[in-house]
Amino acid sequence: MPTISKKGQQMPASPIRKLVPYAEEAVKKGKSIYYLNIGQPDIKTPKIALQAVKESNIDVLAYSRSEGSEVYRQKISTYYSKHNIHVAHDDIVVTTGGSEALLFAFGSIMDTDDEIIIPEPFYANYNGFSTASGVKVVPVISKIENNFALPPIEAFEKLITPKTKAILICNPGNPTGYLYSKEEIQKLAAIVKKHDLFLIADEVYREFAYDGNTHYSVMQETGLEDHAIMIDSVSKRYSMCGARVGCLVSKNKTLIQTVLKFAQARLSPPTLAQIASEAALETPQSYFDAVIEEYVDRRNTLISELQKIDGVKVAKPKGAFYCIAELPVKNSDDFAQWLLEHFHVDGETIMVAPAGGFYSTPGVGLNQIRIAYVLKKESLIKAVNILKEALKTYNN
Amino acid sequence: MPTISKKGQQMPASPIRKLVPYAEEAVKKGKSIYYLNIGQPDIKTPKIALQAVKESNIDVLAYSRSEGSEVYRQKISTYYSKHNIHVAHDDIVVTTGGSEALLFAFGSIMDTDDEIIIPEPFYANYNGFSTASGVKVVPVISKIENNFALPPIEAFEKLITPKTKAILICNPGNPTGYLYSKEEIQKLAAIVKKHDLFLIADEVYREFAYDGNTHYSVMQETGLEDHAIMIDSVSKRYSMCGARVGCLVSKNKTLIQTVLKFAQARLSPPTLAQIASEAALETPQSYFDAVIEEYVDRRNTLISELQKIDGVKVAKPKGAFYCIAELPVKNSDDFAQWLLEHFHVDGETIMVAPAGGFYSTPGVGLNQIRIAYVLKKESLIKAVNILKEALKTYNN
Repeated sequence: MPTISKKGQQMPASPIRKLVPYAEEAVKKGKSIYYLNIGQPDIKTPKIALQAVKESNIDVLAYSRSEGSEVYRQKISTYYSKHNIHVAHDDIVVTTGGSEALLFAFGSIMDTDDEIIIPEPFYANYNGFSTASGVKVVPVISKIENNFALPPIEAFEKLITPKTKAILICNPGNPTGYLYSKEEIQKLAAIVKKHDLFLIADEVYREFAYDGNTHYSVMQETGLEDHAIMIDSVSKRYSMCGARVGCLVSKNKTLIQTVLKFAQARLSPPTLAQIASEAALETPQSYFDAVIEEYVDRRNTLISELQKIDGVKVAKPKGAFYCIAELPVKNSDDFAQWLLEHFHVDGETIMVAPAGGFYSTPGVGLNQIRIAYVLKKESLIKAVNILKEALKTYNN
Repeated sequence: MPTISKKGQQMPASPIRKLVPYAEEAVKKGKSIYYLNIGQPDIKTPKIALQAVKESNIDVLAYSRSEGSEVYRQKISTYYSKHNIHVAHDDIVVTTGGSEALLFAFGSIMDTDDEIIIPEPFYANYNGFSTASGVKVVPVISKIENNFALPPIEAFEKLITPKTKAILICNPGNPTGYLYSKEEIQKLAAIVKKHDLFLIADEVYREFAYDGNTHYSVMQETGLEDHAIMIDSVSKRYSMCGARVGCLVSKNKTLIQTVLKFAQARLSPPTLAQIASEAALETPQSYFDAVIEEYVDRRNTLISELQKIDGVKVAKPKGAFYCIAELPVKNSDDFAQWLLEHFHVDGETIMVAPAGGFYSTPGVGLNQIRIAYVLKKESLIKAVNILKEALKTYNN
C-alpha cells in the first residue's frame, strides 16, 4: 500500500465538522438540533445577487481571467473606497473564497518550516492551511479575561525568529468576536515594519462591527503598503458562503505578481459566483442595517442568557457573529459529543464547536466552546436553556 | 520590504497566459487574433446545465458539504458506471475544478522534496501545482516521433528513487492528444504496484477519444484499488470551464479520508456550479456525438493543413483537442510573441502556446507549439495559413 504524506497525516480534522456523524446519528434517532457550531448564517442572500445569475445570458460558461474579471475588480475597488480603503483594481486578485486567498498568501510569502504568528484562539482552518503549506503556526495567547484583546506587543516580539514571515489576525475575529482598535492595528504595524514581516488581516467580517465601533483596516494604515495583505470574502457579508468568492488585496506589487502566478495555475475563480458577487455589491445599506440590528439583538440575548448559567464565563463580542464561552467542564470535545449522543430536552439538543481546535497550543481552550449566533433569538434562548440543563446533568 | 518565498519566486508563469499582454496590445492596434493558445472550447454548454441554475430556488446560498453534495456524488457514480468505472459515492470528493483535485492529491501523498514522475510534454500547470506543493517533477520524455506514446517502462524504472511517490499521466493527453492503450495502463499498473507508488490519472478528456478508440481508465484496472487516483472535471466535458467543479476519485479509503481533511479546511466547492454540474449529467449522448464529430473534423482539417507546411512536424492526436506541432524555428516563445507584435495577414494573426512550458527538462520542446483546436474549421484553415505565411517571413 503506498503511503500517505506526513503533511496529510498531520492535517487537522475540522473541529467544526468532526461532530457531524454524531449529529447525523442524532437526527436519525429523531432528535432536533440547534446548530450553533458553524458560521453558516440563516440570513437571506440579497435577492439582487441571486437574480443576476438567473438573468445572466451565458452560452458558454467560460473561464474568467485568473485574477477575476476586470469589471468586478473595479467595482470591488469602489466598494472599498466607501470603507475608506483606497486600492486600485490591480491591487486585487479574486479568489475562490477567503480560503484560497489565504493559501495564496501563505504560498507567496512562506517556504517549508517558516513561521507565522497568530493570536489564539484563531479561525481553526488557519491550522489546516498552515499544515497544507508546510509552515508552522506560532501562537500568542489572547485571554477570555481580557475579552481577547491584542496580547502585549512584547509577547509578539519574544516569538519572532529568523523564520518568522508574517503575523496573521482576523478582524473582527472568528471565533472571539473581538474587534481590534486603531491603536492595536498601529502597534502591529510598528512591529511588522521593524522586523520586515507581512501583516495578513482576514477582514471578512468588516461589516459586522457593533456598538458604534468602527472597523479599522490594515489597508488604511499609512506606511504599511508593502507589508499589508488583506483577505476578504463575500461569504459572510452577503450570506453567500456557497458562492466561494473572495479576494486578496495588497499594494505590494511584487506580492500581487506572485499571487497571480498561483492564481494562473488554477486558471480561474468560479464564473457564476462572480456574477452573483458583482451584483451583490449593489446591496443597499438598509440590508446591512437590518442584518446588524438582528445580530446585535441575538448577541445581547445570547450573552445575557449565558451569563445566567453558573460557572459559564463569556467574552462580549464586538463584531462578527461568534463568541467563546468557557464552561464548567474538563473537555468540551467529550461534552459536545455527549450533547449529541446522550442528551436532550424534549427531544431537542444543541451542536457546538469545541474550542480546542481554535488553539494551536496543546491543552489550551479545552473547557471552551465556540457558539455562532446564526439562529433566531427564540432559538438561541431555547438552545442556551438546553446548555444549562445539560451542564447540570453532565456534572452530576 | 518583506520577502517573497522561494516557492513564490519559483512558481512558473503560465505559458498559456504570459503572452496575453502582447495579445491585448495587438487587439488595441486593431489586429484580429485566432486564439489557438487556450483550451477554452467554443462549444456551447448544455442548456440543461445553465437552465438548472436559473430555475434553482435558493434563499440562502449556503456551503455545500466539503466533499460535495451527496446527491451529486451519487449521480456522478452512476455516470461513471456507464463508462465501466465502478465506484461508490463515497469514493468521490467534489473539488473546485480538476486543479484543486490535483492539489489535494499532491498534498495527501507527497511531502516537501518528494518526487513525481510525469511523461512530458505535460499539462503546464502540473509544474505550478508541484512548485506550490514543494515537490519535484521528474520528467520522462515522450517523443513526437512516436506520436507521444508511453515511454518504455525501463525509462520510468530508472527514475524511481526512495523519494518517488507517484506517477502522473493525463489521458487523453493535454497537450499531446495522446490516448493511452489498455496495455500501456497495465504496464504503468505493474510498475506502481511493484514500487508501491500512486498512479494519478487526469482523465478530464475521457469523452474525447476518436477513431473508434476506447478510453481505458485507471479505475478499471483490477488490483490497482489502493494505487489509483482519478482526477476529473466538468470543464471540458460540458464546455463549462468557468464552473470550477471537478472531483478526485479513489478506492483507497485512507487516501480519501486524507483528501477530505484538505477539503474541509476550504469548507466547500462552489454551490451554484454544483447545481449546474448535477444537471449537466443529464446531457444526452447526442450532444457528445455531435461534439466529437465536430472535434474530429477540426482535428483532421488542422493536421492535414499543418502537414502541408514545409518543415512542420505534427503528431496525430487520438483524443482531447490539442496537438503539438514542431516548427522550423529555434525558439517558439520568441516566435509566438513576434506573431502578436509584428505579423499579420490582412490584419489577422494567431496566438499559440509555446511548448517549452509543457516540458520540465530545460531546453526541450523549444521548437514546438501547442495548438488547441477549439475554433471552427474555417477559422482553423485561416489560422494555419497565417502560420504558414508567418514561418516564411520569420525565417527570412
